Amino acid sequence: MVPIISIVGKSDSGKTTLIEKLLPELIHRGYRVATVKHDTHGFEVDREGKDSWRHKKAGAQTVIISSPNKVALIRDVEKDLTLEEIREQLIQGVDLILSEGYKKDVQPKIEVFRKEKHKELLCTKEDNLIAIVSNQKFNIGVPCFGLEDMKRLADFIEKKFLKSKGEEGITLKVDGRTIPLKPFIRDFLSGSIKGMVSSLKGCEKPKKIEIQIEAE
Amino acid sequence: MVPIISIVGKSDSGKTTLIEKLLPELIHRGYRVATVKHDTHGFEVDREGKDSWRHKKAGAQTVIISSPNKVALIRDVEKDLTLEEIREQLIQGVDLILSEGYKKDVQPKIEVFRKEKHKELLCTKEDNLIAIVSNQKFNIGVPCFGLEDMKRLADFIEKKFLKSKGEEGITLKVDGRTIPLKPFIRDFLSGSIKGMVSSLKGCEKPKKIEIQIEAE
Repeated sequence: MVPIISIVGKSDSGKTTLIEKLLPELIHRGYRVATVKHDTHGFEVDREGKDSWRHKKAGAQTVIISSPNKVALIRDVEKDLTLEEIREQLIQGVDLILSEGYKKDVQPKIEVFRKEKHKELLCTKEDNLIAIVSNQKFNIGVPCFGLEDMKRLADFIEKKFLKSKGEEGITLKVDGRTIPLKPFIRDFLSGSIKGMVSSLKGCEKPKKIEIQIEAE
Repeated sequence: MVPIISIVGKSDSGKTTLIEKLLPELIHRGYRVATVKHDTHGFEVDREGKDSWRHKKAGAQTVIISSPNKVALIRDVEKDLTLEEIREQLIQGVDLILSEGYKKDVQPKIEVFRKEKHKELLCTKEDNLIAIVSNQKFNIGVPCFGLEDMKRLADFIEKKFLKSKGEEGITLKVDGRTIPLKPFIRDFLSGSIKGMVSSLKGCEKPKKIEIQIEAE
């Protein structure tokens, strides 16, 4: 599963700026990154009068605009999606997801703190805080990086989240819910399915198998 | 799988207008619909200076803006996605996908034709044309509906695409490619996996099973 890290911090602490500085360092190392921004006020991403805007106005639940170099989507939702739901439903082909905000979500967090702006941190270790980026030192048991020290921050992220490849994974979802699997069951399910699938013509050495079964 | 219908027609034939008129009729019947618009020229859906725009500019491959009532996404792609790829990667929770354009895609097509605008149809039955919406009658072996006759058009779509529930399906993808399965293999794979999964605690009566296996 693609790891998620939330860049959090109090208002005006520099979250967007940190993401702007961190992204090029990660991309330079060959990683593809998705970002997620929470917007409590609602937003406009389409322009009045455009065909896609007319589709949406006529009641389409989802509107997609597709071009040879990018694709855009606007979808109605009934509630705020969690970062995990966003990862599952919308994100493909990236190595890392960075969210801006999402302090209340369960994902690991890096807090930006500038001493001239605030007096106290927003998060504690109990919030799944894994690092601080600041112009002030903190001794709360998590690594602290300077506001400009993107190389060391990227090293930290890389080591902790991006270099754990080489293992084999199976995820099972039943009726939309991810089912936790014990190691034995993982191996049993994975081995059985790989055995069946690799006996099919042209599927001798599957690297990635996706199966979806629906009963009505 | 969610059915896809392409609304096609020559330039200025009234494709967007047809979608605008058809959508409320389908939504009124309780269906949720996604639309897909092809844009060959590229497009702008975000505003300069906004946080999400800054993420994209700093190199994010995907940028997501999430709010309590809608979510938006912009993703870089390396080539035009097919309608099937769009369905698989981006669309969730709808009953029908209507595309505007996509004449060259393989999906079933409904052509809009206005006699005052053009002399000949864009498609033939060989293009997977399944209906015509026009103020002129055509005898080419597909049903023809009037420009305002959305009720009969929606009846046609409903009967042909939306009422075929009740069957059981399994899809298998290996390394991103959908593998065609013969009936025996379908039943064998589906039965084996359902047997294994339903023996897990809390998964006794799975309606939808999704499995993903990755080997590095």
